[in-house]
Amino acid sequence: MTSTDIQQLMQQTGERARAASRLLARADTATKNAALLAIAAAIRSNVAHLISENAKDLSAARAAGQDAAFVDRLVLNAKTIEAMAVGLEQIAALPDLIGEVSNLRLRPSGIQVGQMRVPLGVIGIIYESRPNVTVDAAGLCLKSGNAAILRGGSEAIHSNLALATLVQQGLAATGLPADAVQVVGTTDRAAVGALITMPQYVDVIVPRGGKSLIARISAEATIPVIKHLDGICHVFIDASADLDMAVRIADNAKTQRYSPCNTMETLLVHRSIAARVLPQLARVYQDKGVELRCDTDTRTLLAAAGIVDTLTASEEDWRTEYLAPILAIAIVDSLDAAIDHIEHYGSHHTDSIITNDHTNAMRFLREVDSASVMINASTRFADGFEFGLGAEIGISTDKLHARGPVGLEGLTSLKYVVFGHGEIRT
Amino acid sequence: MTSTDIQQLMQQTGERARAASRLLARADTATKNAALLAIAAAIRSNVAHLISENAKDLSAARAAGQDAAFVDRLVLNAKTIEAMAVGLEQIAALPDLIGEVSNLRLRPSGIQVGQMRVPLGVIGIIYESRPNVTVDAAGLCLKSGNAAILRGGSEAIHSNLALATLVQQGLAATGLPADAVQVVGTTDRAAVGALITMPQYVDVIVPRGGKSLIARISAEATIPVIKHLDGICHVFIDASADLDMAVRIADNAKTQRYSPCNTMETLLVHRSIAARVLPQLARVYQDKGVELRCDTDTRTLLAAAGIVDTLTASEEDWRTEYLAPILAIAIVDSLDAAIDHIEHYGSHHTDSIITNDHTNAMRFLREVDSASVMINASTRFADGFEFGLGAEIGISTDKLHARGPVGLEGLTSLKYVVFGHGEIRT
Repeated sequence: MTSTDIQQLMQQTGERARAASRLLARADTATKNAALLAIAAAIRSNVAHLISENAKDLSAARAAGQDAAFVDRLVLNAKTIEAMAVGLEQIAALPDLIGEVSNLRLRPSGIQVGQMRVPLGVIGIIYESRPNVTVDAAGLCLKSGNAAILRGGSEAIHSNLALATLVQQGLAATGLPADAVQVVGTTDRAAVGALITMPQYVDVIVPRGGKSLIARISAEATIPVIKHLDGICHVFIDASADLDMAVRIADNAKTQRYSPCNTMETLLVHRSIAARVLPQLARVYQDKGVELRCDTDTRTLLAAAGIVDTLTASEEDWRTEYLAPILAIAIVDSLDAAIDHIEHYGSHHTDSIITNDHTNAMRFLREVDSASVMINASTRFADGFEFGLGAEIGISTDKLHARGPVGLEGLTSLKYVVFGHGEIRT
Repeated sequence: MTSTDIQQLMQQTGERARAASRLLARADTATKNAALLAIAAAIRSNVAHLISENAKDLSAARAAGQDAAFVDRLVLNAKTIEAMAVGLEQIAALPDLIGEVSNLRLRPSGIQVGQMRVPLGVIGIIYESRPNVTVDAAGLCLKSGNAAILRGGSEAIHSNLALATLVQQGLAATGLPADAVQVVGTTDRAAVGALITMPQYVDVIVPRGGKSLIARISAEATIPVIKHLDGICHVFIDASADLDMAVRIADNAKTQRYSPCNTMETLLVHRSIAARVLPQLARVYQDKGVELRCDTDTRTLLAAAGIVDTLTASEEDWRTEYLAPILAIAIVDSLDAAIDHIEHYGSHHTDSIITNDHTNAMRFLREVDSASVMINASTRFADGFEFGLGAEIGISTDKLHARGPVGLEGLTSLKYVVFGHGEIRT
């Protein structure tokens, strides 16, 4: 396709999405849930077809030399297909937020003013070659009354188009517009450039994927972006921490899984507890193969305890999201020093204090400017399901609109509604 | 100043604001209120000084040939200065939202999850030559725990710097950082360019002023912008409307004031009530000197009633925010046609239906995708004070974050807070 063809294709996709979004915004809960269940049923009835379309993507990916992790994310099988159907059923079971009016109050003029929760309109989602995201994102947008334009990784194009057909069948079977969920049919990169610069058709962009992709989309988009950048998460073990709890949480926050964004990357320890907790913790980490990059005081302390195979942390280590079995460790003199470190080097994602001092706990909660701030819990809890949002379209490190795990509510907006009886302004 | 000097100046301003914002975020309500009252007192004690600094701006503006309306917005006198002080006292009397924790819920893992309201951080406000905005914006940012960088119109520079000195005195007197409110000291336009491209120091930009200024800032900013573009507001008189109410509201929505953004620009009338309401309304408008630009059916109907001095509306009229004694009028066949017109030509600002049909009222409320949607009330009520927000930093026509009148809450964000007891993820 020429660049003009792609522009035209995306314009048409946008126009259709905008028209469908108006119909979807007024759809009632029962109809939206019926569509979600119809899509789940269609997916369950087409397992063999989905696997054969996915096989085309898989063989192309293998031929292109993609690694095992990539192929693992791309593969559809009986188990992953069933998980998609179950996911849609779970979304159907969530409460519908759309149309709810809150904060109604009577004003001196006589009008009643409240706020109604409404869909954003059209959501553009750009993601990697993970076909499950196609169904997951379609379900969340549908439930929240938004039309969706989905642009998955080009290596998943056959899988995504097969899934899109089933989604559109489910929509049509329940009287909803098939255009409410559209998968971009071209793998040309210019389609992304067009999608993120159509504010007349798209209300928000949700990019999911690597940091460089997200940074590029944020820089080039002329539409608001709900984005997730770094997750440089901290655990601070305060002077009064319970030792067992400190070890348990600091272990879990780092080693339960290494790749998630809510995994701890830097451990801060109060000087007065360091000698009691750090040697024990260092052994836990080293038993699990975690490389320790420490400030000088930590290295000295560990060496005195016979632990010598540690590295000296560089300035860059405090700013690094390893997503790997590597941990930076520093000893600090006070709560204030810990907060200063977090504010200076952190990414405002998720930070936790382990303490038994109530004042320090409440100060940490208030003063650490991160999307999720915790007392005596593992940073790994920063997650839509763990927080009770029911489902998650992503995690936002922005401050405006949605912050932290983004569920259905993040795909909605509040408009003011006024109930009058003939009032005029004087 | 060279362009490098301005970059450096703005960088320093940003660094200071960021540092001050951390101190302000943890300030308690009593201290913030004491600062607001200290600033009000300082303003009242310096009336003569403010008037003499303002006189420098006024003479320069007159020498530059600025019109009477411009000078009117620029002038400070005993009355406008007292109004600024009273405004600060009103902001002090508003509830403090910062630190409030809501939606606390116990999760199956054992953690309690809630959301804490927190400041955004640093707010950049860009506005015209209206010195009262300097004090108003400073007060709102201070109360909501945000640092502010204020860039007013260059013609008000002496007034703004004099006010900034008093604001900083009030801050310092109550132990808050003077850098919490900074007025940009240079009138060079490059300072605006720098301000809107410092995401490391500024969290949100609020531009107040003409449409072209706002459009340019939105296009160039690399920081989220809370913006207000067009206010093409509609009143729809439905078939079942009470005639007296319809005339009263349609009159008020257009003629109470012509320049506000919430003034009606297009009147839509259901065909079945048109002959009863339009001639009467047209006479009301013409008595007040409002020019009527009508569709063909309306012109025919009015001509039959002896009203001939109307114009034919062009396609462009339906898309125009007149901000003047001009009104576009169309007859429509149904509620659906009215909603279609509003969605096609409107600006999603404020729209009202006059009706006695409950189903139509509720459909209008739900289906019109505007920041404020009203039943049987004048569009002129779309205002922070009328809605009970206490004060208003602006009106947003965006859908994300803040929509409609933006009060203190629009200058805040919600972060997740987790109360644990040693929980780990399994």
